Amino acid sequence: MYSYQHLFNFTQTIFERIGLNEPEAHQAADILMRAELRNISTHGLVRLPEYIRLWKDQRITTAPDYKIVHETPSTAVVDGGKGLGLVTAPKAMDLAIKKAETAGTGWVAVRNSYHFGIAGYYAMKALEKDMIGITMTNANPLVAPTFSLKGMLGTNPIAVAIPAGAEPPFVADFATAPVSRGKVDEWDHAGLSAPDGLVQNEHGRLTHDAAALRNGGAIRTLGGDRIHGSHKGYCLTAIVDIFSAVFSGANFGPTVVPTLGYVKGKDGMEDHGIGHFFGAMRIDAFQTKEAFKKNMDHWIRTFRAAEPVQGEDKVLIPGDPEREAEWINREKGITLSEKTIEGLKRISEELEIEFDL
Amino acid sequence: MYSYQHLFNFTQTIFERIGLNEPEAHQAADILMRAELRNISTHGLVRLPEYIRLWKDQRITTAPDYKIVHETPSTAVVDGGKGLGLVTAPKAMDLAIKKAETAGTGWVAVRNSYHFGIAGYYAMKALEKDMIGITMTNANPLVAPTFSLKGMLGTNPIAVAIPAGAEPPFVADFATAPVSRGKVDEWDHAGLSAPDGLVQNEHGRLTHDAAALRNGGAIRTLGGDRIHGSHKGYCLTAIVDIFSAVFSGANFGPTVVPTLGYVKGKDGMEDHGIGHFFGAMRIDAFQTKEAFKKNMDHWIRTFRAAEPVQGEDKVLIPGDPEREAEWINREKGITLSEKTIEGLKRISEELEIEFDL
Repeated sequence: MYSYQHLFNFTQTIFERIGLNEPEAHQAADILMRAELRNISTHGLVRLPEYIRLWKDQRITTAPDYKIVHETPSTAVVDGGKGLGLVTAPKAMDLAIKKAETAGTGWVAVRNSYHFGIAGYYAMKALEKDMIGITMTNANPLVAPTFSLKGMLGTNPIAVAIPAGAEPPFVADFATAPVSRGKVDEWDHAGLSAPDGLVQNEHGRLTHDAAALRNGGAIRTLGGDRIHGSHKGYCLTAIVDIFSAVFSGANFGPTVVPTLGYVKGKDGMEDHGIGHFFGAMRIDAFQTKEAFKKNMDHWIRTFRAAEPVQGEDKVLIPGDPEREAEWINREKGITLSEKTIEGLKRISEELEIEFDL
Repeated sequence: MYSYQHLFNFTQTIFERIGLNEPEAHQAADILMRAELRNISTHGLVRLPEYIRLWKDQRITTAPDYKIVHETPSTAVVDGGKGLGLVTAPKAMDLAIKKAETAGTGWVAVRNSYHFGIAGYYAMKALEKDMIGITMTNANPLVAPTFSLKGMLGTNPIAVAIPAGAEPPFVADFATAPVSRGKVDEWDHAGLSAPDGLVQNEHGRLTHDAAALRNGGAIRTLGGDRIHGSHKGYCLTAIVDIFSAVFSGANFGPTVVPTLGYVKGKDGMEDHGIGHFFGAMRIDAFQTKEAFKKNMDHWIRTFRAAEPVQGEDKVLIPGDPEREAEWINREKGITLSEKTIEGLKRISEELEIEFDL
């Protein structure tokens, strides 16, 4: 168990050491630590070694040429200049919010970026301004469209944050694949089987072998197979890919230059990074703030009061479990996996930062 | 097998007979016939008896007070005045397109509307203007959120249409539940079992009994159960409900006043109809039209060239099967189910329109 503030300071120091200025490093640390607080540790400090490796390989830079390359009153395209996603993405989301202030809504597509942590972080930035926030991103191609032999799409998350009044906000933040890549890797490392219907092997056949992903296999789309709606999952993940990467001019689908050792890239591929898509909508672009919040409270209370099936406690409101985890973890401290601790130790040695944990 | 033009004229005549003017009736017929052409017959002429019944019950009117009740440069809320969805929805989508012309994007939420046919129809309207089109709607509460005993959400479809250049457009149009309500009803009428994992009975337990929906059961969300990502399906369907109904002030989730005989409504429920959400984004709000279309062609060709698993023909591009069906059906004619024909005969008698088929 580690203190939140201690880990935060350590993470910020790492980002400062590789060249981010103080506010950028603070922002980047805040994003990763928010994942730890919200029990989404697959997107937290475990990612630091990958960021450091990409920086060493000069695939990302801490002094990027961030620029707006195209815009209308309600839209923009940002070129992240191969900066860290954790630096580029907050700026792009702020731009979407600024557009929404005048146009009612703002929509920003980003290219030449990299992994940006939890999608929900950016969507939630809109809440402070009484706006709805939307985030999407594409990722390493590990998800097989229906009937595809190979992984062609990322696990491409969507986050949607919607303000309420007396109730806490609705915050949905989910990989559009049934399971995240990080989760399959966890099963693999722990020697566990993958549950039925989630992973296919290099021949496209369903398998329980969690190592299949490292060996040319792929994750199925949400739905799993045709009869259970896998084509809908494919549509959804494809839409996120197009909004994130085609709108912005980033690398899409299987053309994403992998950041994972075990995903094979094609030599000579042009690298425009991965793409993100951010949206902000003023709630008073649709109703008065008061009416909107009252309606949203009504929605949340109606679903929270739903009768659960026998054996289950309740119907969850998206965002409730993560928010409750935040309260607990901020107070009690954060548990890190062995893999995460090893990674942090390695970084502390490489960058000569004291890691007294 | 019926001629396309013949059925079109008959349908238009029905709509004129209940009070729509000629262009409105033509538009409404076009929407239903487009569903027939695209082999989405669950949203085609089989729906006509329901529309007529709602009109007779004075739940919908053919002379609605359609009005824009709220707006910003990129958004609006429309009150459909309890008009037919087939009349209100095209106008609302046109408004989204008009907003996009000046603001880059346009977003319109609609209340006091009813069933609007296939969501894809409206999304595809944007294509003619070199825009991306987005459509959502809520519906009768028949889908159970993860762990819920009862249906609380509709099968809430999303449609996204994205222009390409030399390639035909990408058109995804799908109920966010793994299976549509119409499909389960078809199994029920045909005495067929529902496949594994799609339907739960009135006790919340999985069942193969397709009649369960009529007896207090519900459709599961996309994913089916927690381990296969049903909570993601729940999030997705909930987002569509909120965008459609909370943004607009329509009836959301379980407060939707049912239009299906077998869904129990609560007495005294205020009826603000169902809600829709429409979006239009100019492709040149993100890139030059030429660059966007070239990138989208590249995306489509990459996925069309994906290697299929053994035993399958190819990886499909969303919209391809429906577009191919349109070519064939427009030429060869349209097959109607017995149920649809019975419904049309009944209407032809009631409204005294000749039905010589």
